[in-house]
Amino acid sequence: MIIVMQSRATDADVQHVVDQIKKLGLNAHLSRGVERTIIGVIGDERLIRRERLALLPHVEEVIPILKPYKLASREFRAEDTIVDVVGVPVGGKDIIVIAGPCSVENEEQLLSTAESVKAAGARLLRGGAYKPRTSPYAFQGLGEDGLRILAKARKITGLGIVTEVMESGEVDMVAEYADLLQVGARNMHNTKLLRSLSRLNKPVLLKRNFSATLNEFLMSAEYLLSGGNSNVILCERGIRTFVEYSRNTLDLNVVPAVKILSHLPIIVDPSHGTGRHDLVLPMSRAAIAAGADGLMVEVHPSPAEAFSDGEQSLTPELFRRLMEEITPIAAALGRGI
Amino acid sequence: MIIVMQSRATDADVQHVVDQIKKLGLNAHLSRGVERTIIGVIGDERLIRRERLALLPHVEEVIPILKPYKLASREFRAEDTIVDVVGVPVGGKDIIVIAGPCSVENEEQLLSTAESVKAAGARLLRGGAYKPRTSPYAFQGLGEDGLRILAKARKITGLGIVTEVMESGEVDMVAEYADLLQVGARNMHNTKLLRSLSRLNKPVLLKRNFSATLNEFLMSAEYLLSGGNSNVILCERGIRTFVEYSRNTLDLNVVPAVKILSHLPIIVDPSHGTGRHDLVLPMSRAAIAAGADGLMVEVHPSPAEAFSDGEQSLTPELFRRLMEEITPIAAALGRGI
Amino acid sequence: MIIVMQSRATDADVQHVVDQIKKLGLNAHLSRGVERTIIGVIGDERLIRRERLALLPHVEEVIPILKPYKLASREFRAEDTIVDVVGVPVGGKDIIVIAGPCSVENEEQLLSTAESVKAAGARLLRGGAYKPRTSPYAFQGLGEDGLRILAKARKITGLGIVTEVMESGEVDMVAEYADLLQVGARNMHNTKLLRSLSRLNKPVLLKRNFSATLNEFLMSAEYLLSGGNSNVILCERGIRTFVEYSRNTLDLNVVPAVKILSHLPIIVDPSHGTGRHDLVLPMSRAAIAAGADGLMVEVHPSPAEAFSDGEQSLTPELFRRLMEEITPIAAALGRGI
Amino acid sequence: MIIVMQSRATDADVQHVVDQIKKLGLNAHLSRGVERTIIGVIGDERLIRRERLALLPHVEEVIPILKPYKLASREFRAEDTIVDVVGVPVGGKDIIVIAGPCSVENEEQLLSTAESVKAAGARLLRGGAYKPRTSPYAFQGLGEDGLRILAKARKITGLGIVTEVMESGEVDMVAEYADLLQVGARNMHNTKLLRSLSRLNKPVLLKRNFSATLNEFLMSAEYLLSGGNSNVILCERGIRTFVEYSRNTLDLNVVPAVKILSHLPIIVDPSHGTGRHDLVLPMSRAAIAAGADGLMVEVHPSPAEAFSDGEQSLTPELFRRLMEEITPIAAALGRGI
Repeated sequence: MIIVMQSRATDADVQHVVDQIKKLGLNAHLSRGVERTIIGVIGDERLIRRERLALLPHVEEVIPILKPYKLASREFRAEDTIVDVVGVPVGGKDIIVIAGPCSVENEEQLLSTAESVKAAGARLLRGGAYKPRTSPYAFQGLGEDGLRILAKARKITGLGIVTEVMESGEVDMVAEYADLLQVGARNMHNTKLLRSLSRLNKPVLLKRNFSATLNEFLMSAEYLLSGGNSNVILCERGIRTFVEYSRNTLDLNVVPAVKILSHLPIIVDPSHGTGRHDLVLPMSRAAIAAGADGLMVEVHPSPAEAFSDGEQSLTPELFRRLMEEITPIAAALGRGI
Repeated sequence: MIIVMQSRATDADVQHVVDQIKKLGLNAHLSRGVERTIIGVIGDERLIRRERLALLPHVEEVIPILKPYKLASREFRAEDTIVDVVGVPVGGKDIIVIAGPCSVENEEQLLSTAESVKAAGARLLRGGAYKPRTSPYAFQGLGEDGLRILAKARKITGLGIVTEVMESGEVDMVAEYADLLQVGARNMHNTKLLRSLSRLNKPVLLKRNFSATLNEFLMSAEYLLSGGNSNVILCERGIRTFVEYSRNTLDLNVVPAVKILSHLPIIVDPSHGTGRHDLVLPMSRAAIAAGADGLMVEVHPSPAEAFSDGEQSLTPELFRRLMEEITPIAAALGRGI
Repeated sequence: MIIVMQSRATDADVQHVVDQIKKLGLNAHLSRGVERTIIGVIGDERLIRRERLALLPHVEEVIPILKPYKLASREFRAEDTIVDVVGVPVGGKDIIVIAGPCSVENEEQLLSTAESVKAAGARLLRGGAYKPRTSPYAFQGLGEDGLRILAKARKITGLGIVTEVMESGEVDMVAEYADLLQVGARNMHNTKLLRSLSRLNKPVLLKRNFSATLNEFLMSAEYLLSGGNSNVILCERGIRTFVEYSRNTLDLNVVPAVKILSHLPIIVDPSHGTGRHDLVLPMSRAAIAAGADGLMVEVHPSPAEAFSDGEQSLTPELFRRLMEEITPIAAALGRGI
Repeated sequence: MIIVMQSRATDADVQHVVDQIKKLGLNAHLSRGVERTIIGVIGDERLIRRERLALLPHVEEVIPILKPYKLASREFRAEDTIVDVVGVPVGGKDIIVIAGPCSVENEEQLLSTAESVKAAGARLLRGGAYKPRTSPYAFQGLGEDGLRILAKARKITGLGIVTEVMESGEVDMVAEYADLLQVGARNMHNTKLLRSLSRLNKPVLLKRNFSATLNEFLMSAEYLLSGGNSNVILCERGIRTFVEYSRNTLDLNVVPAVKILSHLPIIVDPSHGTGRHDLVLPMSRAAIAAGADGLMVEVHPSPAEAFSDGEQSLTPELFRRLMEEITPIAAALGRGI
C-alpha cells in the first residue's frame, strides 16, 4: 500500500500518517519526491482498511499494491488447476463442451437434447430448473421436478449435470442432483450463496456478473476458495456495454487475462455472451482460440418453441457444426475436444 | 409487438408469420412498405415470448411496443404513490432524508449517530447488519446483534429503521426489526428475495443494480407489486461506467425519467452513488433539484474508523451542513424537508 | 511514479530498474516490503514514458503519482478562473445561460429565437453553422452563411455568439464571427484543432467527449492552456453508457469533481446530455445545484420543424420556465442569473 | 418507420399524424391494437427527420425500421467487397497482416522493423507520422519527414504503406505517400476528413471509435461510400467499458456482426484493442477465428525504447510467433496467410 501525500502536506502531517501505520502494526517507509512525499506501507496491506489512512489529513491517495485476492492468484499456485467433474477434467489439455437447453421444459425435450449433444461430443449436460427471469410474468423453471428430469437424463446418457442454484437455502437440495453447481451471473456477488457452496465437496461453475471487473470476479472465486472449496471453474458470459447489436458484449480478453493472473480454469458461454444464435459459432471458435478451457452452449430441439432464451439457442444440427468447427481450432493449439 | 420482415421475404413467409400469430390467440395487421412488410400484432404482447416469432423464416426483427411492466407504470396509476414508513410519508410533498452508518458496529456508534442525524433533521435511520462485501476477508456485519442495536436506537430516538435483507430465508427475521426493508443493488435481480418481500405488509426500498436499465429496475419493482406489496420506494445509487474519478456514476437522469414512466417514489443515495465524501453534498443538492423524493446518506461519527465505506461517509457536522444546503433547494421546488 | 516489482524479482532485477531510472536523470528510492519491493521515482515523472520502466524484467506495474495535467490543475492555480466572453464573465458569481437553436436554419428562425432567449435572460446566443452529423444524408449546416446570420443576430440583440469550429483550417474564419469558439464533443481529441485554438486570443468552450475520462478532458484543456490560451470553459454534455432511456447519460458528478481538481469554469449542456426535452428542465435545475457555472440549452421556435435535434429542443415558452425554475436554485447557492 | 401513439391518443390525434405523414410525401397505414394504435409509414423513411413526427401531440415513440446506412449494407451488395491495396487483396480468401511501429521514429528503426515483419509474413507496413496524443507534452510524430521514411521503406521492402491522416487539409499530402490511408478512432466522426477521403481514389482504413455503436461505425463508412470511394476496410480496435485490466475492451463480436450486416472487409487491431503486449497473441488468434480478414499489429525492435505505445508493442521475435500461431487457425477456416 502506498500513501501519496498532498503537495501542501507538512512534515507533521507525514509523521501523523507514519504513526497511524505503526499503530496498525505495520511499518512505514518514506520517499520524499520533488513535488510530494509518498509513504510505503510494509506488511500485509490486505489486513487494513484503506479509509484508515485515506481520511487522514493531507493524504491525497491510497494505492493498493497487492492484489486483493490471494488463493485465486497465480502467485499462490503456479500450475493450472484441473477441476474434476465426475471424471471430466476441466482445465487440462482437453476442451470441455457443456451443452443443453436454457430451461428444462419436460422429459422429452431434455432427453432428446441430451442424446443429440452427447452424440456431437458434449461432455456435460446443462439445463436450468430454477431460472432468474427479468419479468415476474415469465417462466421461472420447473424447480425440483426439473432436477429429477436432469437426473434421469444423466442415468440414460451418462453425462454429468450442470445446473444453477439460486439461494444458500437450496444448495443442499440442488447438490443432491447436480455434478457441477452453477452460480449465475446475477448471483456472483451473493456472498451467502458463495459461502454455502464453499463448504461443499462439489465443483462450482462461477459465472461473471455482467458488470464485474476481473478483480471482483476473482474475489468471488476467493470466497469459494477461502471457505475450503478449491474446485472452481470460471465462466465468462458477456458484459454490459453501450453496444447495441448483441445482448451482451462477450469479453474474450478476460480469458488470457485470467490465465496470467490465476490458476483457475475458465470457460466461455457464447450463448448468453452474445444473445444471438448467429454469433454463437464464430464466437465459440474465437473463445477456443483465445485459450478458453471449454464452452457452455445452449441447444434446443426447436428454439422457436423454447420457454426461454430461444433467440440464442442452437438447433442440434447447428451444434454439431459448432463442434466440427472448433475441433481444428483446438488442434491448432495442441488441444483435443 | 411489430414484426419486421426481411426485404427478401415472400408472401408465403409473411402468411406463415400471420398464421403463427393467430395460433397464439392474437391478431395480425399487415403493412406493406416500399422496401419491406411489417406486421402488427393485435393483443397483449406481454403474454407471448418474442422468440416464438423472431425465429420464423425471414423475420428480421421483433419490436415490442408495450412496456414490459404494467403495475409499476404511470399508465396503470396516474397519481404519485406515497409510501408510509411508520408514519413517515415517502413520495409526498416532503423530502425525506434517511441517514446513518454503513454498518452497525456497536451500540455507542449507532446511538450517537442516530441522535446526531435526528437532531439535524433525518426522518429515518439506516444501518447495515448484514453486509455484502466484495472481499471474504472484510467485515460482514453483526447480523442479528446488529438488528437488536437498531431496534434499541429506534426505541430511544423514535426513528424508523432501514436495513438490508440479503436472502429470502432471512426476510421474516429482518422484518421483525426493520420498518423499511432494503434490497441492495447486488440483489435487485434476486427474484426469490423479491417474491418473499412481495408477500410482506412492510415497505421495501429497492436499490437499482449498478448495471440495470430503467426497464429492468421497474421490472424488479413489478415483482414486488405483482406479488401484492405496493409499498415500494425506488433508490438510485450509481451505475457502472468507464468513469474513473468516482466509484460509481450517480445517474440523476433516472429521477425525472422514473417520474414520467412510473408512479413510485424515488430517492437517491449519493454516498454509494459517488463513493467520495467530497462529492456527497453537491450531488445531494442536485438530487433534490432533479426531483428526488428523498436521500439516503451515510454518516459516521469518525469515518476514518468506520468498518466499511468510510471514504464516502459524512461526519455529523458535514451532515448538518448537507441538511442546511438542501433546505432552500427543496423550498425552491415547493417542498419541505 | 512508483514501480512495483514482481514478487520473484531478484536484487539484480531491482538494481537494473534503479540504474535505468538514474540514466533517465531521475532518482530512485527503494522500499522493501514483505511480499515485494517497490521503487519510488524522485523527479518530474511527466517527462518520462512509462514503458521505459514498465517493460524492464520483473516489473509488475508502474503507477503514476502526479496528475498528467499541470496548468489545468487547482494546484497550479488556486483561485477560480473567470473567463470573459465579450463582457460576460463565466465562472464568477453569476450563472451564465447560453441558448439558441442547434443549427442556424435561416435569418427569421435565428432572430426570433435570439430575441426570445434574450428576453428570458440568456446572456449568450448559440447556433451551429457547421454540424457534425452521424448521417451523410442529414443537414450539415449553412456554413459561412450561418455565421453571417449569427453576426446579424449579435448586432440586433447584443448577445455574444457561441458557435462550433470543426477543423484547424477553419479556425481563423470562424473566429472572425464567434465570441466563444466551441470544440464539439467529437473533436475533444482533435489535437490539431486544439493547437490552432490555443494560439487565439478568444475564449474556447471545450465539450467533453462522450467517452472521455476526467483526466482526458483536462488533458484537452491542457493543450489549450499550454499553447497560450487560458480562456477555457469546460462543458459536460453527457457520456455514453448502457442506459437506454436517455440518448446520453448526463454526468453531473463531473461538475464538483472539476471544481476540486481544476480552476477552470464548467457549464452543462442538458439538451445533448439527455437528448430528451422532457428531461431538460429537471436536469438544468440539478446542474445548477451541483455547482455548474452555467448552462447551454437548445431552443427552437418550433422544435418539430427543426433541421436537427428537435427532440431535445425547448420551445421559447419552456425556456422561460427553465429560467424561472433555476433562479431560486441559483439563489439558494448564493448566485445570480 | 413506425409511430406508436400514446394510449390516451384520440382519433383526431391519430388523424393529425397521418396528415403530417402525407404532407411529407409518404403514406400511412393504421393498425389499431387493444391498448394503442400504431401507424406504419410507407416510403423511404431515411428522407425524413424523426422529430417531425416524434413531437406531434400524443405520439409515444417513433421506431425506425430501415437501417440508417444503405451503401454499406449487405442488402445493397450481397457479395463480399475485396479492397485492393497496391496488389494486396483485403477481404478475400487470405488473411492480411499489417505490422510496424506505432510511430516512425527514425530511418533505422523503421527499416529494421519493416524487414523483420516482412520476413515473418506481413503484407503491409504500418507506421504513424502524425500522432494524436492525449498529452500535449508527448511525442506528436515526425510529420512529413516520417512519411518520407515510410516511402523509403516501401522502396526497399516492397511493402505497401499504411499511415494515419488527421485532417482534411492534409489528405492530399499524406495520400502522396500512403497506399492505405488510416482514419484513427478519434477521427471516425470527423465528417470533413471523411468527405475529403471519399473523393480519393485510394483505399481507406476506417478505425472504429472507442464508443461507436455498429450503426455509427457503418454510418462513417457510408460517408466514404456515398462520396464515391468504395475501397473501405473497417478496423475494430477496442471499445471503452468499465473493464480495468486491459486499456480497451477488444470487441470481437463486431466481426461476425459486420459480416452479417455489411459487405465490407473488417480487420482487427489487437495492440490498441488490448493495450497489453501479453494479450496480443491470444487475441490475434481469436480475431482470426472470429472471421476477421486481417490484423494490424504494432511491432518495435525495442518496445521499452518506443516513443509511443511501447507497452502494447511486440518484439520482432514475438511477432514471428504470432504469425506461426495464426497460420493453423486461418487454415482451420480454409484461409491462407
